[in-house]
Amino acid sequence: MVDLTQLMENEVLMAFASYTTIVLSKMMLMSTTTAFYRLTRKVFANPEDCVSFGRGENAKKFLRIDDRVERVRRAHLNDLENIVPFLGIGLLYSLSGPDLSTAILHFRLFVGARIYHTIAYLLPLPQPNRALAFFVGYGVTVSMAYRLLKSRLYL
Amino acid sequence: MVDLTQLMENEVLMAFASYTTIVLSKMMLMSTTTAFYRLTRKVFANPEDCVSFGRGENAKKFLRIDDRVERVRRAHLNDLENIVPFLGIGLLYSLSGPDLSTAILHFRLFVGARIYHTIAYLLPLPQPNRALAFFVGYGVTVSMAYRLLKSRLYL
Amino acid sequence: MVDLTQLMENEVLMAFASYTTIVLSKMMLMSTTTAFYRLTRKVFANPEDCVSFGRGENAKKFLRIDDRVERVRRAHLNDLENIVPFLGIGLLYSLSGPDLSTAILHFRLFVGARIYHTIAYLLPLPQPNRALAFFVGYGVTVSMAYRLLKSRLYL
Repeated sequence: MVDLTQLMENEVLMAFASYTTIVLSKMMLMSTTTAFYRLTRKVFANPEDCVSFGRGENAKKFLRIDDRVERVRRAHLNDLENIVPFLGIGLLYSLSGPDLSTAILHFRLFVGARIYHTIAYLLPLPQPNRALAFFVGYGVTVSMAYRLLKSRLYL
Repeated sequence: MVDLTQLMENEVLMAFASYTTIVLSKMMLMSTTTAFYRLTRKVFANPEDCVSFGRGENAKKFLRIDDRVERVRRAHLNDLENIVPFLGIGLLYSLSGPDLSTAILHFRLFVGARIYHTIAYLLPLPQPNRALAFFVGYGVTVSMAYRLLKSRLYL
Repeated sequence: MVDLTQLMENEVLMAFASYTTIVLSKMMLMSTTTAFYRLTRKVFANPEDCVSFGRGENAKKFLRIDDRVERVRRAHLNDLENIVPFLGIGLLYSLSGPDLSTAILHFRLFVGARIYHTIAYLLPLPQPNRALAFFVGYGVTVSMAYRLLKSRLYL
């Protein structure tokens, strides 16, 4: 059996693991935020979820769309759309031997931008706060992709 | 060229690979389930998909929303929202040298919970079946994230 | 500190990194395509996004659903649903020591199919163009999953 722990002694990979865990945990909080709003505002997507609030016609009135809930769901989907490329490109970038301080700068900017994006979406802050946060995260991923393709293109 | 096969001789990583492949294959079945319901119930999202059922005004009546299809799509999106963090955190957790039996317990619980979640969503089973399945999978990911950040935090 | 750069000297992993970066970059273009259509067609999901086009009742008319925007969003979600399994299964498959030319064939087919899927969805091309592109990508992922489970099953 190989001792894989040495893999994780690589500092770039350790940093990637830490920042990735933080940004994915933040994303997971969106699920609980949605659940929180669904329960406190009594807004449900499935009949079986609102049985305790009444049955039959009485329950159907809870199967509705709510601005607040939809806003959280859009923020959650935007997270997914942006964190998935970061996961894939970021892991391969980390393995491609980048400079430690450059790599950490990329990770910090991305995680900071995604946290700010969520705050700007949920409060909400006036534009262009959210758009800016989006483009910073986007730019970080593009920059890692560029570095990866420049140094390791193999088609 | 490096012999990477030794990486996969690590038992935790082999277990992670097996359980991940199973849970991702299950998620991919949601696509075919959606397609199955769309075809059998004649419910489409795009005009070009229902051309064979008629043209013009006649075709438009198939562009509709269906409870059954929407239910599968919600289950699919919930899978995405929960399996993506498991993928990222689980891979890095596997590389951080955890105890084999603890790691396998995590993977088994997660995969079992997600399969049960899908069953509970599609049948549907009464609540709190689905909510419980969701929280077991969620808890497993949080537990791996905690272990990862405790042992390898590097910011 | 371990020299991880040797990991990336593995040709299969380098090829996986290149094709993954390309397909994830393509997926990220869907975000900008959505933003492009939202701005040019003045179709928004959030009140704060259309403040510059008017306030109060005047702004509300931009909070609407548009066929073109919804089409891009469906293509984007379909990308997510299919690229996430490719990411997870493909990485583990690459680490399992497959034959280089077989691996590259898988990656090329998948990336080509997903690019064709996007073109077929956005133009749109008549069916079964999109369905075929979907099933080629799907088949590639299933083939990698099968190979992985056959050679490395560890439950």
